[in-house]
Amino acid sequence: MAGGQGTRFWPASRRARPKQFLRIAGKQTMLQETVARLRGLCRPEHIVIVTGAEHLRLARAQARGVPAANFIGEPVGRSTAPCIGVAAQWIAARAPEALMVVLPADHAIRDARGFRATLRRALRIAAGGEHLVTIGIPPSRPEVGYGYIELGEPLPGEGSGAHAAAAFHEKPSRATAEDYCESGRFLWNSGVFVWRAGTFRAALERHLPQTAAALRPLAAARTRRAFDLALRRAYRRVEAISVDHGVMEKADRVAVVTAEFDWNDVGSWAAMAELWQVDDSGNAVRGEAVVLDALGNVVLAERRIVAVLGVDGLIVVDTPDALLVCDKSRAQDVRKIVQELDRRGRRRVL
Amino acid sequence: MAGGQGTRFWPASRRARPKQFLRIAGKQTMLQETVARLRGLCRPEHIVIVTGAEHLRLARAQARGVPAANFIGEPVGRSTAPCIGVAAQWIAARAPEALMVVLPADHAIRDARGFRATLRRALRIAAGGEHLVTIGIPPSRPEVGYGYIELGEPLPGEGSGAHAAAAFHEKPSRATAEDYCESGRFLWNSGVFVWRAGTFRAALERHLPQTAAALRPLAAARTRRAFDLALRRAYRRVEAISVDHGVMEKADRVAVVTAEFDWNDVGSWAAMAELWQVDDSGNAVRGEAVVLDALGNVVLAERRIVAVLGVDGLIVVDTPDALLVCDKSRAQDVRKIVQELDRRGRRRVL
Repeated sequence: MAGGQGTRFWPASRRARPKQFLRIAGKQTMLQETVARLRGLCRPEHIVIVTGAEHLRLARAQARGVPAANFIGEPVGRSTAPCIGVAAQWIAARAPEALMVVLPADHAIRDARGFRATLRRALRIAAGGEHLVTIGIPPSRPEVGYGYIELGEPLPGEGSGAHAAAAFHEKPSRATAEDYCESGRFLWNSGVFVWRAGTFRAALERHLPQTAAALRPLAAARTRRAFDLALRRAYRRVEAISVDHGVMEKADRVAVVTAEFDWNDVGSWAAMAELWQVDDSGNAVRGEAVVLDALGNVVLAERRIVAVLGVDGLIVVDTPDALLVCDKSRAQDVRKIVQELDRRGRRRVL
Repeated sequence: MAGGQGTRFWPASRRARPKQFLRIAGKQTMLQETVARLRGLCRPEHIVIVTGAEHLRLARAQARGVPAANFIGEPVGRSTAPCIGVAAQWIAARAPEALMVVLPADHAIRDARGFRATLRRALRIAAGGEHLVTIGIPPSRPEVGYGYIELGEPLPGEGSGAHAAAAFHEKPSRATAEDYCESGRFLWNSGVFVWRAGTFRAALERHLPQTAAALRPLAAARTRRAFDLALRRAYRRVEAISVDHGVMEKADRVAVVTAEFDWNDVGSWAAMAELWQVDDSGNAVRGEAVVLDALGNVVLAERRIVAVLGVDGLIVVDTPDALLVCDKSRAQDVRKIVQELDRRGRRRVL
């Protein structure tokens, strides 16, 4: 899943180049790192990348090992349920029994070995064909911005370490999040899923029948052109709904595998900075900066020198044609700036 | 007086182009506005501009109406007493009886009419040849960054509105500054002086005899080349000392004329912003900026869009190759950044 506009990462991210296509979390772009992380687990020919139609060329240029035919361009973003449904159709049409791993292309995971080990455990459960498997992240803080999965009974079978999902909980209050963390029975919902393509298609038919019906013609499309045409038609009818809300929360047999890897969904500049090196004063700097008497700032200097003096907890993102200065606590609101620039008609910097 | 490095205005000001040569306070550069302010009071042929030798070309290019021969390039900055001494020699050699007005080229004064009216009052007193006349600014706040002049007895003579200067006081404590403001007997020392060139030369001989002796050969220099050579020689011997400290504080007959004009010495970015238009939230913006949920910020956007979100009391100065983000309370410390960049050898942005 390489969709999304990444407006929270303006001005580094732009409409033409959202977060997943940027080299801001690691050495490669987030899409490239997501592909690279699968090495040894999945052959490049078996990777399918769904992105916005306007980003197809960029995605192909970045994920070079993946065959050009495996890129799917959504005419418009409709959240994750339709996106995954399209991919499931595409995969099932070629390999009806295929196991399918769903990965957001804009999460940061450093421990690729632990990541693959976790996926292998999930794949073993998903291979049974009964379960929709989700990967849960042990919470490191009472985060109120994430969804949580409540663990039920351990799954039968020796050493799977997996549980049935008792319930999905939306973003909790602070107090609730603290309770979740203390209890040890709640995991963050990572947005990483594993299942048989057919199992997911069946779940989609049951829980989102309209969306499933809209996507059904995709299975019959024999050519690229026919597929794209069917996709455009389907997207006129599908509703925008997340797979968590539309499918996972309603499905009967959901299994949770606990992640054995680090994870950062990189939801804002504040989260991004957790991936960068931090100096003794808690400043995370990329590029050349002079930081004096300043604590806990995030500075991205692309080409110019950035000087920061006597300020704390700021996000400073410098690009050749636009600059952002923002309080860390407002990192989620950067999209408001993009909206304002849109309103002003400043398309050049959107 | 168009000397000074203006490091407090980095990154807008650079070694090659200090504050007085920038278009940041008004529509023209500060030097140009200083020259323009004299229209009707002084013919351009009678304006003498003293600047750093490295800035002679720039000064000439900006002050076009002033004859090229009237520019003096100091080999090195030595504060105001030597600078004014050099100009007094230059003027006295050409017109021994000349009245001389000393003006810093980096102060902002909007009311040119009031400015000239005040200078005319000062010139009438200076014409007597007895007094060194200084212009005092009625304080609008208990500023601790300025020097103060204590008013003595009113000068005899009808309606001059001038006083003898009882004493000069260095930068006071907060409490003292508040007392000064309440008393009504203290004015800010503006750094604007009026006197006969010969009167100042005599005062220099008396109170700074070494400096006066070093500068004496300038009077005999018949050619430009001879003058510049004598100047370089003299500057090896003069000490760096302000005219306030070196002459005014010690002189017997100092008169103070109260200014009838607005005045801003533009000592930092925080002071600069007082000259700009301010929006309802107290933000002073030059250039294109998106300012959301932000109070009392100073933003200079030269060519790029600057977005400011959820921050208060910041100075953001954006230039093509360097950017400053600084708390307003630290505006005086911007020079520390310049020092650090110098230490790093980043001469390109100094």
